[in-house]
Amino acid sequence: MDITTYMHQIGQQARAASRLMAKADSNTKNRALALIAAAIRRDAALLRAANEQDLAAARANGLEAAMIDRLTLTDKGIATMADGLEQIASLPDPIGEITNLRYRPTGIQVGQMRVPLGVIGIIYEARPNVTVDAAGLCIKSGNATILRGGSEAIHCNRALAKLVCEGLTGAGLPEQAVQVVDTTDRAAVGALVTMPEYVDVIVPRGGKGLIERLMKESKVPMIKHLDGICHVYIDDKADLDKALKVCFNAKCQRYGTCNTMETLLVAKSVAAEVLPQLASLYVHEKVELRCDADSRHLLASYPFLKSATEEDWRTEYLAPVLAVRVVTGLDQAIDHINSYSSQHTDSIITEDYSRALRFLREVDSSSVMVNASTRFADGFEYGLGAEIGISNDKLHARGPVGLEGLTSVKYVVLGHGEVRK
Amino acid sequence: MDITTYMHQIGQQARAASRLMAKADSNTKNRALALIAAAIRRDAALLRAANEQDLAAARANGLEAAMIDRLTLTDKGIATMADGLEQIASLPDPIGEITNLRYRPTGIQVGQMRVPLGVIGIIYEARPNVTVDAAGLCIKSGNATILRGGSEAIHCNRALAKLVCEGLTGAGLPEQAVQVVDTTDRAAVGALVTMPEYVDVIVPRGGKGLIERLMKESKVPMIKHLDGICHVYIDDKADLDKALKVCFNAKCQRYGTCNTMETLLVAKSVAAEVLPQLASLYVHEKVELRCDADSRHLLASYPFLKSATEEDWRTEYLAPVLAVRVVTGLDQAIDHINSYSSQHTDSIITEDYSRALRFLREVDSSSVMVNASTRFADGFEYGLGAEIGISNDKLHARGPVGLEGLTSVKYVVLGHGEVRK
Repeated sequence: MDITTYMHQIGQQARAASRLMAKADSNTKNRALALIAAAIRRDAALLRAANEQDLAAARANGLEAAMIDRLTLTDKGIATMADGLEQIASLPDPIGEITNLRYRPTGIQVGQMRVPLGVIGIIYEARPNVTVDAAGLCIKSGNATILRGGSEAIHCNRALAKLVCEGLTGAGLPEQAVQVVDTTDRAAVGALVTMPEYVDVIVPRGGKGLIERLMKESKVPMIKHLDGICHVYIDDKADLDKALKVCFNAKCQRYGTCNTMETLLVAKSVAAEVLPQLASLYVHEKVELRCDADSRHLLASYPFLKSATEEDWRTEYLAPVLAVRVVTGLDQAIDHINSYSSQHTDSIITEDYSRALRFLREVDSSSVMVNASTRFADGFEYGLGAEIGISNDKLHARGPVGLEGLTSVKYVVLGHGEVRK
Repeated sequence: MDITTYMHQIGQQARAASRLMAKADSNTKNRALALIAAAIRRDAALLRAANEQDLAAARANGLEAAMIDRLTLTDKGIATMADGLEQIASLPDPIGEITNLRYRPTGIQVGQMRVPLGVIGIIYEARPNVTVDAAGLCIKSGNATILRGGSEAIHCNRALAKLVCEGLTGAGLPEQAVQVVDTTDRAAVGALVTMPEYVDVIVPRGGKGLIERLMKESKVPMIKHLDGICHVYIDDKADLDKALKVCFNAKCQRYGTCNTMETLLVAKSVAAEVLPQLASLYVHEKVELRCDADSRHLLASYPFLKSATEEDWRTEYLAPVLAVRVVTGLDQAIDHINSYSSQHTDSIITEDYSRALRFLREVDSSSVMVNASTRFADGFEYGLGAEIGISNDKLHARGPVGLEGLTSVKYVVLGHGEVRK
């Protein structure tokens, strides 16, 4: 079978399954999640073995260490996947919820009911845990899903897919509600994003290259997970202790995450006081500072110092590197952020009430913060229970995308025979 | 200047204006709306004259009567536009509203703030009132907008654009917050939908041909206003009086609207009772009935009778024509609707509680109704105050799109120096 025919068959099956998933009740969906969690725990050894096959191939192909790290499924990782499913089961079911049901002057009652999106296509890198997290979120939100994971994880994904199917059928749900694309052919991605008749939304997770390719090719709406060029702005009314704590944490707590600070902005009048103290923290972690002229002047003796270029303001380092710029104040900070940020997460450190409110209102990013580390920007920290990604888009879902982002609402009208005059 | 350069300039100006609109306060926006309304009333004669130019050209070009009717701006139409702006001014300002601000275990407070989308491109037919309605909704929701109306209305739209600019500048808002594309060149539409750097969302209103063209060309997300193939299903537990009232109203109250019923489904066991009575109402309006075999048999003596073909189940007549099918019951009705409806608006007539709930849950349309006329599906009737269109999409906005559909939310985090552990 050629790849287009194969993908269309998967699409048709997903569409059919989505109709059954949409009417599944909460208990049935939660039962499926519990069964999958149990199957994952039971078959931990099998999963490890499948993962070993992937890892052997990855090593043979000379994959870089960071990729191998992401691909590796440990016993702890397996337990976390199972726990995650049980957490999703414990979340309230969003589907069927009716809100704002109000009488209108004509006598009809109008409200909105939360409904699944239908079929969700997820394209992601070689991380086996995403297979299970995404399957769990889609099952709970009453959607069917087509999962296209990185080809390096194909053995592990196949093994996980089998357990997901076992859980679905065990609960009386259609096994095709979750389908893992079982080919490493890259043409499968092209087919997946060009069949709007079967797929309602694509959630791409991956590098900028993948996203840009998909933006060109896709005929299906996307909830895009793009890069994170996150800023912290230290205002001249900042509490110095908070500034130091937050800026150290935002850069150094973890380097490879999209909510890590990549550019630090400091108000001119406090730069001479703040920057050297911050540098005395960063130096222990060997953080390279890429400075504009003003900050370079203040940090002349810092051992890992470079001059910033225009390119630095647009760079997501994902590494112990930080761009630093001295700004005249809040206006310039907001201008800088709205020009260079990837609209992911930006934070102000200030004790000034009006400036805090202005920053919250005027910075056009999916998360805006006052006196908090950018590292908080994720679904678990925000209380969504889980996330399928962090959306840099404005339409539909913005910021961490949990169960609700995988749903829509429809209007419901309860009448008593009313007609339009 | 070539058309692409011209459109890019409009786009840049809109993007710049959108930043100022996003921070405008409610009073300023409402003042602009009031000034525009006053200017429209003051210049009613000028607007009529501009409209006359359009109408003369339309007649010379042999436009059909229905188009000329839409294009015509009466004194009443002008008053309605001005009233509409004042109604929009009286609606609560959605922008800046913060909801669900809750403490998390880490100490941070997380909530969501409603924000404008940015720049909204609206492509519509030759209806001058849409120019004013759309401008009003976009101003109130803090967006900049680029309006591309049907070329037949260019003189009138130019005159309206001048008044909108007068109101914006009078209130201290950027005049480029609302720009009317001042060319009849169709290439302007192609340019508008392919500059995602300046335009955040496209709202197309128009025929299927336009929408299909845009779906192929657009690089900007769309909130699509598509066709309305709306159904009423008369269940065998229906209250006969309600069924007759609603089905007559849903078909005959207005033929040309997207929420008009186009297909009637009747449960087999009551078809012999219901259909002849309904026919005795439709006959006065000369409604042509396109019947399946069963209903044709029951309506043999009806004077405007035809046999339905497969094509009829997929047709939006926008005329005194109705497709009729007898179904075995609720299951077949839901199957028919989910197969053929355009997911716009569908209604069940029943007194049965469980069937009403099943219909609401299982029919996958933007509006689902019980015992009410499909004609209620619009923004005013639903209490949104105004609408920019009715979305057949599931992502972002579904059903009538009012102010909220032109907004997004971002996460706000209020911290006290918290860092991630």
